[in-house]
Amino acid sequence: MITTLNDDQAYELLKTAQVGRLGCIVNGEPYITPINYKFEDNCIYSHSLAGLKIIALRKNPRACIQVDEVESDLRWRSVLGFGKFEEITQPSERRNILSQLLKRFPMLTPVESAIAEDGSSPEVIVFRIRLERVTGRAEG
Amino acid sequence: MITTLNDDQAYELLKTAQVGRLGCIVNGEPYITPINYKFEDNCIYSHSLAGLKIIALRKNPRACIQVDEVESDLRWRSVLGFGKFEEITQPSERRNILSQLLKRFPMLTPVESAIAEDGSSPEVIVFRIRLERVTGRAEG
Repeated sequence: MITTLNDDQAYELLKTAQVGRLGCIVNGEPYITPINYKFEDNCIYSHSLAGLKIIALRKNPRACIQVDEVESDLRWRSVLGFGKFEEITQPSERRNILSQLLKRFPMLTPVESAIAEDGSSPEVIVFRIRLERVTGRAEG
Repeated sequence: MITTLNDDQAYELLKTAQVGRLGCIVNGEPYITPINYKFEDNCIYSHSLAGLKIIALRKNPRACIQVDEVESDLRWRSVLGFGKFEEITQPSERRNILSQLLKRFPMLTPVESAIAEDGSSPEVIVFRIRLERVTGRAEG
């Protein structure tokens, strides 16, 4: 039987999951990409190389993040959060967020480690998705 | 280093993955939901209860399917396929597809098992996403 997660349960999964799927609209089509992220103050914080997805999000900032825990076909939890893409360009804020991401994901690439030490490089896009609403479902 | 998967590698992941993330556009926003599916003849076959996602896909059939294998932050493969949602309404075709899904996912619910035996029930939506293009990336 599929049940609805309450807000606490939904936010708990957003806090603990390591990989999320970021959804956006690229050339009028849905687009999904897996991301590592950190959840704080109702925002998803992440980073990306410049590319198709970022160009599209700058034009249309509506985004979603989906996370799940699938133990089996009959035992899973899934959360979907909707919000707005906001690029973070201020060097000290970029540095701070990249440092936190690096702490959570120690295997980020050397490029990202270098930027975490020197947040002024524009090579990596740092962004947040400010969540406005969250829904969650579970089975089992 | 991130590399591009060739078509064979991308289709191989689509064939073997058990869970995919279906992307669509709901009320102008990206929307993602995890699905079990079967890949055949360049189509994703799946099923769903009637709801928000199906109503939206009937209006705007553009969809994507994302599958990945994440072993670690530095060792992963991800494939994204784009295509069009097509609802399958013909009872024998519905029955045939649900039987195949049931074979692949024996833990589908009793409702779905019943429909697989009697494909005429409209409770469960059976659909395909006919893929038009596929992209894939990997690291490690």
